[in-house]
Amino acid sequence: MLHNSHSLTRLVGELKKLPGIGEKSACRLAFHLLRSPANIVALADALHEVHSRVRFCSVCFSFTEDDPCAICSGNRDESIICVVEEPQDVLAIERSGAFRGKYHVLHGVLSPLSGVTPADLKIAELFERLKTGTVREIVIATNFSVEGEATAIYLTGLLRNLGARVTRLAHGIPIGSDLEYIDAATMQRAVQGRSEV
Amino acid sequence: MLHNSHSLTRLVGELKKLPGIGEKSACRLAFHLLRSPANIVALADALHEVHSRVRFCSVCFSFTEDDPCAICSGNRDESIICVVEEPQDVLAIERSGAFRGKYHVLHGVLSPLSGVTPADLKIAELFERLKTGTVREIVIATNFSVEGEATAIYLTGLLRNLGARVTRLAHGIPIGSDLEYIDAATMQRAVQGRSEV
Repeated sequence: MLHNSHSLTRLVGELKKLPGIGEKSACRLAFHLLRSPANIVALADALHEVHSRVRFCSVCFSFTEDDPCAICSGNRDESIICVVEEPQDVLAIERSGAFRGKYHVLHGVLSPLSGVTPADLKIAELFERLKTGTVREIVIATNFSVEGEATAIYLTGLLRNLGARVTRLAHGIPIGSDLEYIDAATMQRAVQGRSEV
Repeated sequence: MLHNSHSLTRLVGELKKLPGIGEKSACRLAFHLLRSPANIVALADALHEVHSRVRFCSVCFSFTEDDPCAICSGNRDESIICVVEEPQDVLAIERSGAFRGKYHVLHGVLSPLSGVTPADLKIAELFERLKTGTVREIVIATNFSVEGEATAIYLTGLLRNLGARVTRLAHGIPIGSDLEYIDAATMQRAVQGRSEV
């Protein structure tokens, strides 16, 4: 592809491994980086730094530089744990500012077709955390996909026996949406979940 | 954004500098890289390698690892030079396999509004190459944008005096297109440039 430049071909090959980046985008990024030597070095250094510094929090299994992470070691409500699929879900919930409890990252969802069983997720670690008995509510915030729902149902079954309250995030109409464009399944949940004003 | 992880924030910041990558895409890429330690190191190494190995060819100003580049030092027709805006344009023309001459990369186009003057492009270097007198044809393959056309007209004016043939790439209907969807300007050029069968 790139006449005689092994290193450029290699960079394009690495960029192509990224999600949503194909051959053409990878070439465009590589050429963009080539024109800005400062950026190419800064990006390489940032990658090395992340690789050497960021690890899993040994409590919640989110990404962190300090173990335990800022949320686990911080002044948060220990009686409520929010269970999410991936570390980026923690960020999404944190951005809302609406949750003051702690988190637990499963690192995936149950998926028999892909061979993901409960043993592949951080479920045993979640139950280990619950042993202290301080947790009164578990919010299951897996995605609303088939696998996410299945994982939520599986966890609910296990958690009910512990006596803690098990909740899920509310379904409904997103803020700022036109009712006209809401899909039927969301509208159904919005009607079912309607509340007194 | 990323609670307490300076290095992750820095990586997202670097990824955001890439063309077509915003905050959300940068986060997605960063988290994807975090899950694959082998890829993150491979990408960082590839960036470092490109930075240390790839430079401009001192003849045609395309990117290369060996100076002069494979095309300049290779067995190509020296009597024809194709003038392009950027190194990636060389690749686009090479992929066609239709050109057997040499290249010259301008590294930009004339753009008075952005302050790009002839002195900012590799125009003097092009005329230096033409001094040998072996070049009989110059193909001006700048883009068909306003700046690309202006650069082509400017170069044509200078090159005519040298006695070499000056040509441009053909305009017309792209292969595989439906006539129905061709824009008026392209159709106009296609009609004007029609050829005997």
